[in-house]
Amino acid sequence: MGSLENEPPSAADHDFKGSARPETFLLVLNAPQPPSLWQELSGSVRGAIFPRGNQPSSLTKWAISVLHGLFPVLHWGRNYSLKSFRSDLMAGLTLASLGIPQSIGYANLAKLDPQYGLYTSFVPPLIYAVMGTSRDIAIGPVAVISLLLSSMAQKVVDPSVDPTAYRKLVITSTFFAGVFQASFGFFRLGFIVDFLSHATIVGFMGGAAIVIGLQQLKGLLGISHFTNNTDVVSVIKAVWVAVHHSWHPDNFLIGCSFLIFILIVRFIGMRKRKLFWLSAITPLLSVIISTLLVFLTRADKHGVKIIQKVKEGLNPSSVKDIQLTGSHVGESAKIGLICAIIALTEAIAVGRSFAAVKGYQLDGNKEMVAMGFMNLAGSMSSCYVATGSFSRTAVNVSAGCKTTVSNIVMAITVFLSLQLLMKLLYYTPVTILASIILSALPGLIDIKEAYNIWKIDKMDFLTCFGAFLGVLFGSVEIGLLTAVLISFAKIIISALRPSVEMLGRIQGTDTFCSMRQYPSAAETPNLMILRIDSPFLCFMNANFIRERIVNWVTEGPNATNEETKSVIIDMTNVINIDTSGISALEEIYKKLASSSVQLAVVNPSWQVIHKMKLARLVDMIGGAWIFLTVGEAAEACLDDKKEDNYIV
Amino acid sequence: MGSLENEPPSAADHDFKGSARPETFLLVLNAPQPPSLWQELSGSVRGAIFPRGNQPSSLTKWAISVLHGLFPVLHWGRNYSLKSFRSDLMAGLTLASLGIPQSIGYANLAKLDPQYGLYTSFVPPLIYAVMGTSRDIAIGPVAVISLLLSSMAQKVVDPSVDPTAYRKLVITSTFFAGVFQASFGFFRLGFIVDFLSHATIVGFMGGAAIVIGLQQLKGLLGISHFTNNTDVVSVIKAVWVAVHHSWHPDNFLIGCSFLIFILIVRFIGMRKRKLFWLSAITPLLSVIISTLLVFLTRADKHGVKIIQKVKEGLNPSSVKDIQLTGSHVGESAKIGLICAIIALTEAIAVGRSFAAVKGYQLDGNKEMVAMGFMNLAGSMSSCYVATGSFSRTAVNVSAGCKTTVSNIVMAITVFLSLQLLMKLLYYTPVTILASIILSALPGLIDIKEAYNIWKIDKMDFLTCFGAFLGVLFGSVEIGLLTAVLISFAKIIISALRPSVEMLGRIQGTDTFCSMRQYPSAAETPNLMILRIDSPFLCFMNANFIRERIVNWVTEGPNATNEETKSVIIDMTNVINIDTSGISALEEIYKKLASSSVQLAVVNPSWQVIHKMKLARLVDMIGGAWIFLTVGEAAEACLDDKKEDNYIV
Repeated sequence: MGSLENEPPSAADHDFKGSARPETFLLVLNAPQPPSLWQELSGSVRGAIFPRGNQPSSLTKWAISVLHGLFPVLHWGRNYSLKSFRSDLMAGLTLASLGIPQSIGYANLAKLDPQYGLYTSFVPPLIYAVMGTSRDIAIGPVAVISLLLSSMAQKVVDPSVDPTAYRKLVITSTFFAGVFQASFGFFRLGFIVDFLSHATIVGFMGGAAIVIGLQQLKGLLGISHFTNNTDVVSVIKAVWVAVHHSWHPDNFLIGCSFLIFILIVRFIGMRKRKLFWLSAITPLLSVIISTLLVFLTRADKHGVKIIQKVKEGLNPSSVKDIQLTGSHVGESAKIGLICAIIALTEAIAVGRSFAAVKGYQLDGNKEMVAMGFMNLAGSMSSCYVATGSFSRTAVNVSAGCKTTVSNIVMAITVFLSLQLLMKLLYYTPVTILASIILSALPGLIDIKEAYNIWKIDKMDFLTCFGAFLGVLFGSVEIGLLTAVLISFAKIIISALRPSVEMLGRIQGTDTFCSMRQYPSAAETPNLMILRIDSPFLCFMNANFIRERIVNWVTEGPNATNEETKSVIIDMTNVINIDTSGISALEEIYKKLASSSVQLAVVNPSWQVIHKMKLARLVDMIGGAWIFLTVGEAAEACLDDKKEDNYIV
Repeated sequence: MGSLENEPPSAADHDFKGSARPETFLLVLNAPQPPSLWQELSGSVRGAIFPRGNQPSSLTKWAISVLHGLFPVLHWGRNYSLKSFRSDLMAGLTLASLGIPQSIGYANLAKLDPQYGLYTSFVPPLIYAVMGTSRDIAIGPVAVISLLLSSMAQKVVDPSVDPTAYRKLVITSTFFAGVFQASFGFFRLGFIVDFLSHATIVGFMGGAAIVIGLQQLKGLLGISHFTNNTDVVSVIKAVWVAVHHSWHPDNFLIGCSFLIFILIVRFIGMRKRKLFWLSAITPLLSVIISTLLVFLTRADKHGVKIIQKVKEGLNPSSVKDIQLTGSHVGESAKIGLICAIIALTEAIAVGRSFAAVKGYQLDGNKEMVAMGFMNLAGSMSSCYVATGSFSRTAVNVSAGCKTTVSNIVMAITVFLSLQLLMKLLYYTPVTILASIILSALPGLIDIKEAYNIWKIDKMDFLTCFGAFLGVLFGSVEIGLLTAVLISFAKIIISALRPSVEMLGRIQGTDTFCSMRQYPSAAETPNLMILRIDSPFLCFMNANFIRERIVNWVTEGPNATNEETKSVIIDMTNVINIDTSGISALEEIYKKLASSSVQLAVVNPSWQVIHKMKLARLVDMIGGAWIFLTVGEAAEACLDDKKEDNYIV
């Protein structure tokens, strides 16, 4: 507040007409000091530790509130009714019938043995059921994460050469993913998920779906030797070579038949909402029928690939597989981080959209903690990264789930089948897994939404398309990197080259608006009113803005011949300023003063007026030339110049 | 304009009180379409090719205008008078007397033979004289660039092991620096220089000055074995070891005596402005006196290190030294890029500050082209990267230079001394070069400005301090990287966590302002007025803003018990929006509608209203609930709710 006391005299010293001038300028100059950097930082840290500001009175109460925060089940569990359970039971069973074949397929995509997919459908849903805040989400392995894990992990260890080392790497990555997710939640770093915009996700999912589809050609065609790369070019090349050498039409025939079967049933389900459960159990049905078929015809002797042995029994402990020392720790952490972010993004997107439909609020930070713990627990019980699945969540909701109990029902069903039914999968053809995965892909490609993005925002579409092409022709990581870079470039460019608008008065009002946006707004003679459209007048744009304003004033943007006698700079949109911005304003003032053009500053925001005072810029411009509204400033400028003309 | 025609009916459909409502909302809804991404891109490309929009009529005229653009000398040369020449001659001679010893010293700092410093003071100033737009700048080698070059280049090739390869690397880097600088100018990429903020430069220069000073300890103490690292810790360690083993007090004595002599004379010069020329020639005087001293006492036999042979004659061609193939091309390009940016930043900062004093405008893009060509020419004539020097430019201005002719005079003087006087430098002690460099350093450390930055903007000071510490304890590159990262983080954080302000009415006016900034602004009952303080409502902050607004409305930010019946969102500060922002607005609307709270949107900017129309969000909110000013919106909301109460 140091220089504050100097303002009133400086304002009084200035030759301005007190009578015509309302006193709002004193409000601008006498604003209290804004919170300092230190206060803001400590405030946000305090906010992170004590979320809603209501500190509990005793330690016991605090512990209870923490427990309630961590385990929402304690809250809703009390009022859980038999009626809800009946709904959840049905939803859980439907979910399991879809989840079991999908899990086996996704384990295949993740280049792990089939049982790992089932393990991942058992432990994580149980943990999520007691910790999660979404009532609808269905937890388990998903296609995109399975692809992501295998595409990154097989660059470090080849699963066909050393499957044990590969599995250890995947388990360790899952552990890191859990650690990252839980820490994001604890430290309220939810914004990390925001870095992946909606447009990025649409493009990324579309690209990933196509890549996953192409990967399924291996199973569908019964190819033995396939590429480890995921980009379109390598995969098509590998398929081309394989088709000309060794493939088994029987596999293709079985796979395609069942794919068509599943798609037709789904189509019927979409038409008649009552039959949706039919489409949910078709994958399981297809597995049963195709297995019987192969068993009866002994087609495995004629080139049809079968799953063969699936290990029975409960998830074995994998604590010893988590390798926190050794050469691959850095790689595992990197894979874990990327999987953690993508998994969270998918889960939160799914959770949010269904929460919005049902009208409840999702707590992003709690979700992250729940996901983190579920993956940590998973990494210790032979699971790989689990998250909320788009397709299964939709089935769960359609089947009428009420709470996360449906996840528990599903987990128990998976557990039972792991104990009892694994022997029956011996003759299941591998190609049927490809059909099941392929049938789930159309849901990931959202052409309608991509068109919508194109229509509304071309730059957003560029992000979307960048992610899509990056995934398709580069790799999953390149796609993500492209999208994030385009997104950030957008922010930086908008900070780098802000627009400066000329304002005019809307006739019959005292409102001043951009003359480009409102062509009916009229210029005021001898007066140039400019609005800086940047929130941060800083090193990146200060020179640009200074040059533009000085050029406009000295040369005129529209080649009007009228002389500019006063310039009003509307600072409404400038939220903050740095030392470069202050120098730019100072230089603008000096330049205008040297051409005897009066400068008036309108509505500087809190930080801006504070720093202008500290830099003694207010003294330089004169406190009387700082206004609250453009109208007041325009009046004062016109009065001042009238007086000038009178004297001359 | 597709959806435009649908708006008026939608506005009319809505049950709003036409009589009480001014018609400005139609202005908002009927704004013309903003320029598309394509139009903006092509516009800025056209702007880059035809700068001021005035396309010349014929090819000859175009060629002449291009020539005049490239060679400002064609413009001012015509009116050049004898009187100006007299001033420039004096300034040039003064400049040369300071420049010659400095150049030899800087060549030493760059780990090149002494003559290379002189070469760099000959060709580049000549080129700049005909191409540059600054009248004051003095071109030649400078301390920071010499340090930068040697610190980066010696990591690739050790100059003490293979001086020829080292020289070739430096020449190639100079070539790349020229290419980069000229391209920046041609493609109008001047903003690259803006990435280094004023605060960064202050911190960087301060750190570099200390590092350069420490490097001089080698010469000052006559140490033979010295470290190649530039950080404080390594240098002090090396000095410590050397002081305990082998150093020559004679060197230290001579160096210190002359350093004190130069500093005292400079102090006198600063006190009496008329004697400034004395301080300008003291370095030369010191060289002459010390050389005579050593020659007469044959002190070189007693451990005083002397320069010995300096090659006579004009700059030899170095076209063959430019290596565009081979293993070091990538490294040279990297070194060239960093030197190009730092050199431009220094030159433009120097040029701008003196242009501002004398009241003329510097053309940043032309400056970059001139600097680029001068370094390209330099790289072909055995020069290393030259730029505008802080200290010599100040001397040039003090000596009364009028145009760049003073640079030509200096270059000719350097040329003559290269031809005639090099033999006389045989007995010049090396330590005197250290004294001359040390005496120039205090000008680079600007503690007053650093304090000023601290006072005005703590975040800016962090950037400054980061650059300082980075240079001091890491390396020159680490310092720059730290500062640039902090600067960018500032921009990203401000985009990530914008503030949402509650607005209140300033009593007695129709102006609504932030209640935090203006404590006298009063709330309106049942009405919550919020302003989003972000220029870009996008993926990075959309969720944050949505959650904050929804939480405030449902829970109240100040725990007021009054029920909120309407929410007005002032979008004045939101310049642009993306699809995530649109979804956030949509969700806010739906959430408020579900609690029967009326939403009004005020003053959406051009892009925002356009995209809201495309996304059919205007239809959803209702055209009648979009206003030009907060006052109108508040009135409409209050009217609406009064009506509601009446009905109930």
